[in-house]
Amino acid sequence: MPDRVKKLEKRLDYQFKDSELAVLALTHRSAEKHNNERLEFLGDSVLGFIVADELLQRFPEASEGDLSRRRAALVNQDFLSQIAHQLNLGDLLHLGLGELKSGGRQRASILADAVEAVLGAIYLDAGLAQCRKLLLSLYGDELSVMLAAQTSKDSKTRLQEFLQSKALRLPKYKVEAIDGEEHSQNFRVSCYISLLPEPTEGVGTNRRIAEQNAAANALKSLGI
Amino acid sequence: MPDRVKKLEKRLDYQFKDSELAVLALTHRSAEKHNNERLEFLGDSVLGFIVADELLQRFPEASEGDLSRRRAALVNQDFLSQIAHQLNLGDLLHLGLGELKSGGRQRASILADAVEAVLGAIYLDAGLAQCRKLLLSLYGDELSVMLAAQTSKDSKTRLQEFLQSKALRLPKYKVEAIDGEEHSQNFRVSCYISLLPEPTEGVGTNRRIAEQNAAANALKSLGI
Repeated sequence: MPDRVKKLEKRLDYQFKDSELAVLALTHRSAEKHNNERLEFLGDSVLGFIVADELLQRFPEASEGDLSRRRAALVNQDFLSQIAHQLNLGDLLHLGLGELKSGGRQRASILADAVEAVLGAIYLDAGLAQCRKLLLSLYGDELSVMLAAQTSKDSKTRLQEFLQSKALRLPKYKVEAIDGEEHSQNFRVSCYISLLPEPTEGVGTNRRIAEQNAAANALKSLGI
Repeated sequence: MPDRVKKLEKRLDYQFKDSELAVLALTHRSAEKHNNERLEFLGDSVLGFIVADELLQRFPEASEGDLSRRRAALVNQDFLSQIAHQLNLGDLLHLGLGELKSGGRQRASILADAVEAVLGAIYLDAGLAQCRKLLLSLYGDELSVMLAAQTSKDSKTRLQEFLQSKALRLPKYKVEAIDGEEHSQNFRVSCYISLLPEPTEGVGTNRRIAEQNAAANALKSLGI
């Protein structure tokens, strides 16, 4: 079994019955004709379905529009590439030379597609229940943030909209520190807005969550 | 249990454990605040997932682009509203007065949404396996047409593209006859093109399939 697959299994806390699926999920189209695109096609729909099902259960009163917005926030490229960063998936990808040289390991589209491909591989390897389990563990923090929020709009969006309504400058976010081991990192982020004399802080297991928490604290300081 | 639910069950050949789900699936937002929009949100993703999974299995060599095109052909509004017509779903919908008066029972968007809502209801009532079974029975003919086709492009599209490449007029389709009982209808359609002296014919359980078959026969007559 290739070393990359062993690493992936460790990071996902999941062992593939068919390790060929894992190899395929990590193979970008720039490297091989036999690549992860079909798995990505499958994984995308598995992801959409599990997230829809989960949101419907967790938000029994939410409207269809609200559910759609929440889902969009959880399945977009930006969010999926953050998950890829959490798993350091970029290091494990098999890329062609061109992509390697032009920074493919960091490209959001490649990373997001790889997350979907891994999900498709796990679906074929072990079925939906295993996919759901993995997703909930990867999404854990983000779902909690969402559940805590009063509206489907995230804190960064709400803060931005509030400042825009006052014709004020948009917030600036700065990563102050990244602590911890490679796969259990902790981000500390500051949020600067002109209405508050000091920046507010937020922490989280990835930059996005830390920024959301910093924005939530800014909203709190503003009494919103 | 409302009469509408009994009719739906008969047409689907499926009995709901929770008939409230069926009532909800048939309730348009114009009629009630508590309507089928959440079920539609869920059903849409169930549909996308089952179709993706099925296509991946049935087309082991197809590219991701090819799979996406095939899926789009099976989950679009036009196609879903044809399925609604097959089931005479329009008659069973609970609509508000405004929608009723403006022909809502025939509106493609309302019908397609209702098909998705029914699918979402069956998922909640009985799980994925039951949804898959229902879909395959509803899609049966259309999937066979697809499997028989050499490319992912359907016959109507291929015929249209061929005629356009020769700068000829587009084909005209005409429904010649609709036979059979309400829920096992048979459509007979003619396809007229300027290159053939006589129209070609196609039959099928709905207009779309009959048109596809008529187009396929035209392609055959042209030796394409």
